[in-house]
Amino acid sequence: MSDTKQDGWETIRFDGVSKTVIDEEIASEFALTIVLNGEEFATMVCSPNDLQELVIGFLASEGIIRTFAEVKTISLDEAMGFAYVEIYKQIDFMQQDHSKRVIGSCCGKSRQFYFKSDVKTAKTITSTISLSVTQCYHLMKKLQASSEQFKRTGGVHNAALARKDELLTIRTDIGRHNALDKIYGHLLQNQIPVKDKFIVFSGRISSEVLLKISKIGAGILLSKSAPTDLALKLADDLGITVIGFARGNKMNVYTHPERILEAHI
Amino acid sequence: MSDTKQDGWETIRFDGVSKTVIDEEIASEFALTIVLNGEEFATMVCSPNDLQELVIGFLASEGIIRTFAEVKTISLDEAMGFAYVEIYKQIDFMQQDHSKRVIGSCCGKSRQFYFKSDVKTAKTITSTISLSVTQCYHLMKKLQASSEQFKRTGGVHNAALARKDELLTIRTDIGRHNALDKIYGHLLQNQIPVKDKFIVFSGRISSEVLLKISKIGAGILLSKSAPTDLALKLADDLGITVIGFARGNKMNVYTHPERILEAHI
Repeated sequence: MSDTKQDGWETIRFDGVSKTVIDEEIASEFALTIVLNGEEFATMVCSPNDLQELVIGFLASEGIIRTFAEVKTISLDEAMGFAYVEIYKQIDFMQQDHSKRVIGSCCGKSRQFYFKSDVKTAKTITSTISLSVTQCYHLMKKLQASSEQFKRTGGVHNAALARKDELLTIRTDIGRHNALDKIYGHLLQNQIPVKDKFIVFSGRISSEVLLKISKIGAGILLSKSAPTDLALKLADDLGITVIGFARGNKMNVYTHPERILEAHI
Repeated sequence: MSDTKQDGWETIRFDGVSKTVIDEEIASEFALTIVLNGEEFATMVCSPNDLQELVIGFLASEGIIRTFAEVKTISLDEAMGFAYVEIYKQIDFMQQDHSKRVIGSCCGKSRQFYFKSDVKTAKTITSTISLSVTQCYHLMKKLQASSEQFKRTGGVHNAALARKDELLTIRTDIGRHNALDKIYGHLLQNQIPVKDKFIVFSGRISSEVLLKISKIGAGILLSKSAPTDLALKLADDLGITVIGFARGNKMNVYTHPERILEAHI
C-alpha cells in the first residue's frame, strides 16, 4: 500500500492483427473514505500513496481546515481504506456549505461562479516571483523525466512544488485533483511557505484546478495541458500566471505574463 | 450556449524564446446546477452543449432514475446555468444513499468497493456482440478524426455510441464523465437499445467510468487511454470487454477477449 506499483495484468497486445500476451503493469486505484469527527465525509478514489497528505490537502481544498494545526488527530486504516480525522472545529454536516453554489455579480464581462467555500478561501496572489522561459521548459522536462510510472502505466498525473531551478516535491495520482491535493497537504503538514514557489502540473486546467492553486497560494501554474476559459478568467481575477501546453521548447502564457521574463521585454 | 465554441483568448505563444501574440481558442467551461424536485441536487462543470442529455445521463448514473419515463418535467435556464428537474419518485435528500460506500466481501482476490447506488444499478453484461481488431482501429480513428474541437483546444474528451462499422452519436465535454453521461442521456431519451452497440472513448478508464459503461449496458469499451486495476477487476466481474491504448494500429485487450475475433483464434 505504500507504493502505487501493481502486479501485472494478463493483457493481449495487438500490433496490427498480430498478438502477444504480456504481463502489463496497471495503475492502481484505491478507495479511501474520510471519516471526519465520526461522520462519513467523503469517499475518493486515488493512488494508494501519500494518503495522509491527500486527506489533509483534500480537507483544505474543501475549506474544512486552513492549517494542519486545526487537525487534532489523523489515523489511516490502509487495509480497509479509511482515514479517521478529528478536527477541533465542529462541523455542521447538515449545512453542507461546501457544496452550495454562489453566483457572483462582481464580474463585468462574464457570468462567473464560485462555491461558498471557495469564496471564503480563494485568495488573490501577489507573489512577485519571476521565471525565464528556459526555466519553464527545463522544469517541465524534469517533471516528465521523473514520471517513470506515467511511462509504464500511462495512467497517472503529476504535480510538483517547484522553485526557480528545481522540483522540490513530486506527487502522483490517478486523479489530477488528488495529485494537487497531495502537494497541498505536504505544504500544510510541513508549514512550507509558498511565496517563492509555484506548481508544475501534467493535467488540464479547469476552474477547480485553478481555485486549488489559488488556495495553495502559488503565483504560477505551469502545465503541459490545456486550460478552460473559466479557469483563465479566474486566473486573471486572482493574479495567477497560467502557462499551458508546455511541451518541449514551446508553451503558451495565458494570464499575468509579468512573471515571465521574456513575455514583457 | 448551444455550442462549445469560444471567442479567442489573447495568448503569448513561445517557440524557444521567440514569442508571438495569438488569439487562441479555449475550451468553454460552464457551471450547471441541477435542481431536483425543488432541491439543489448537484453542481457540475461541463461543456455547454447537449445539456438535457447530460442531466438525464447524470441522474441515471447516480441511480436517481432508470428510464426517461421517470422524469415528469425538465427545463433548462441556460443563461443562469440551472436545470430544473421534476421526477415522479420522491427523493429522500437526507438519506443520501448515493454517496454511501459499501465494501463487498464477495470478491475473492481483491478488496473491491461499490457505492450503494452502484450495487443497485451495476449489471452484468451478456452482450454477444463481436468485433474485429481492424474494426476497432477504424472506429478509434473515426473518433479522433471527428474530434475537431480537441485538435483546436486540446481540452475536451469524446465518447461515442458505436455499431460495428460506424460511430452513431458522438458527444464531447471537458469532463470525461460528462461525455459518457451525455451518451447515456441520449440513449435513455431516445430509448435506443444497446445490446448491439458499444462505447468508443478518449478518456482514462477508472472504476467510475467502468461502472457507467455497465449501467449503460455496453459490452465493449474501446478507449485510447489507460485503465486502472480496479476498473479491470470490475470489468472482469461484470462481463465487459475493456480495450485500452487504442492508438493507430495498436491496442491492448484487458478483459473478456471473447468479443474480439482475433483474440481467440
